[in-house]
Amino acid sequence: MMERRNHQIILERRPTGRLGEEHFRAVEGTIGEPGPGEVLTRTILLSVDPANRGWMQGRTYREQQGEGVVMSGFTLSEVIAERDTAIPIGTLVACDGGWQEYAVLPADSVRPIQKRGPLTHHLSVLGITGLTAYFGLLEIGRPVPGDTVLVSAAAGATGNVVGQLATLAGARAVGITGSDRKAKFLVEQLGFGAALNYRSASFIDDLRAGCPDGVDVYFDNVAGTILDAALKGMNIGGRVVCCGAVSTYDTAERSSGPRGVPGLLALKRLRMEGFIVLDYVDRFAEAEARLAEWVASGDLQVVEEVWEGLDAAPAALVGLLAGDNLGKRLVRVSGYNV
Amino acid sequence: MMERRNHQIILERRPTGRLGEEHFRAVEGTIGEPGPGEVLTRTILLSVDPANRGWMQGRTYREQQGEGVVMSGFTLSEVIAERDTAIPIGTLVACDGGWQEYAVLPADSVRPIQKRGPLTHHLSVLGITGLTAYFGLLEIGRPVPGDTVLVSAAAGATGNVVGQLATLAGARAVGITGSDRKAKFLVEQLGFGAALNYRSASFIDDLRAGCPDGVDVYFDNVAGTILDAALKGMNIGGRVVCCGAVSTYDTAERSSGPRGVPGLLALKRLRMEGFIVLDYVDRFAEAEARLAEWVASGDLQVVEEVWEGLDAAPAALVGLLAGDNLGKRLVRVSGYNV
Repeated sequence: MMERRNHQIILERRPTGRLGEEHFRAVEGTIGEPGPGEVLTRTILLSVDPANRGWMQGRTYREQQGEGVVMSGFTLSEVIAERDTAIPIGTLVACDGGWQEYAVLPADSVRPIQKRGPLTHHLSVLGITGLTAYFGLLEIGRPVPGDTVLVSAAAGATGNVVGQLATLAGARAVGITGSDRKAKFLVEQLGFGAALNYRSASFIDDLRAGCPDGVDVYFDNVAGTILDAALKGMNIGGRVVCCGAVSTYDTAERSSGPRGVPGLLALKRLRMEGFIVLDYVDRFAEAEARLAEWVASGDLQVVEEVWEGLDAAPAALVGLLAGDNLGKRLVRVSGYNV
Repeated sequence: MMERRNHQIILERRPTGRLGEEHFRAVEGTIGEPGPGEVLTRTILLSVDPANRGWMQGRTYREQQGEGVVMSGFTLSEVIAERDTAIPIGTLVACDGGWQEYAVLPADSVRPIQKRGPLTHHLSVLGITGLTAYFGLLEIGRPVPGDTVLVSAAAGATGNVVGQLATLAGARAVGITGSDRKAKFLVEQLGFGAALNYRSASFIDDLRAGCPDGVDVYFDNVAGTILDAALKGMNIGGRVVCCGAVSTYDTAERSSGPRGVPGLLALKRLRMEGFIVLDYVDRFAEAEARLAEWVASGDLQVVEEVWEGLDAAPAALVGLLAGDNLGKRLVRVSGYNV
């Protein structure tokens, strides 16, 4: 096996403006051997996330994505070799396997997965994006029955789960999304109370009409002008969950904050709070179990797209940043147990 | 008594740029008679606050300050007549008596005061600004021993109390102020761990040097570029108390929010939270008692300036907005029990 090649996708150079497929290059690398305390993994599924683009911009909660090296990415992988670790061969793990078929990783950086239903769920509703929705909404946003919960990028991997969890919490979910088709999907298929297309000329009016009782929780995945608009509609005592800033990722421009902050925060006693789901890693198992129950009962619908083959990853990410996905976007890199 | 005149100061017109004394005019009005459920008050002390300028800008948590009418302002007053109320004549009250010698007010809008020490304390450390420091720091900022608490407008009425309460809570207080003289005062007289002059060319470096362990709580009285600088120095999990935005009050310009919000909030898991002290009115008595104990024990020093005579009010406010005060600025309108 060690003589087979490792198909990989390199980030050749970081974009200065918008990301394009030309920033990537496919190469045939080698398959490494695990050293002491390391595992060798085979990538089954690759998660495509807006954060992938954010990692290119600079140091965040992780090192900046380098140039000329394998593109980073969350994966669902299978351990196929190990050395001096407690992880048996065949274990399914969530890890940062990157855009490649095989990865050598420290054993303590991979998270063994208890398989629940389809594998894809472990990178969507039970993965980082579902967990982000779970902890961000329930721990930071804290909706109570009767609240209006507004969420942007609502048809995205995190947003669609936020809206569904808000409904389960007895709140009214209102989604902001980028097309009428997606807005219709959110209302008709996922039970959102309303959904609005931010590209519509009447967006500001639609937002007001869609939230007749104001907004108690705004789950912000996008920042920028949509955050401006959402802040204006907040009720006194409202909570803004600062989860993502997708509108600022695919650009080299530094953006200003929303106008009127912090005066508006004081005036309306708002709380804007940032969080990163990795802080809740000790509670992932608990959250996964709860999410899986809701999936099993049909209370939580899973919205996924699976693209085939690692070479599809660049186009999948570029399109995601333009908002052409519906739900969680994944790339199938290899079959499971083949 | 009802034939005496009521010396008043009118806001003749709202400023379009910076506030000046020319926006005010002194007049001789009449002394009203209390109707049913009303009291007639005589103003003893007038509180001069940056918020006075904010009220001119538009509707906030209260109606916009009108033109051609008596300037609004918090006062410590004595009830000298009443009709069908439960408030005895001679009661000391905190109220919105405005810039005048006498005011007729609804009885339910005045707050009887239990006199503790000098009357001035009821408009400084035991008044709205002291209570703002108390609730804003302890309920929103929540410092723990060892934290670094940074406060802007630190030599002002609220800021100096914030720093002293932070020290009492076991934190290290760092003040931002507008002169070397005030910075020296904060460190040498009030026990701040460090104090910085934001007008210094080396301010950004001074800020970093003054907070070698980063900032856990930033109590923001000013917004603007100082908030930008403070946000950059925040530790993970930090809290920003959005109390005031003095840098934006004395201008007609709309300002943008701090750069990088909300990305920075997520990256550092920060919480920016606005509050208005009036939400805590049910707990004012409890807070007053605690503050008064600290004043009595010498743990909390009272920093006040008292200007003499109502006609000094315009200059007192204009100067306050330029930052020429040290501690709480008051105007003595009349003697007590004369």
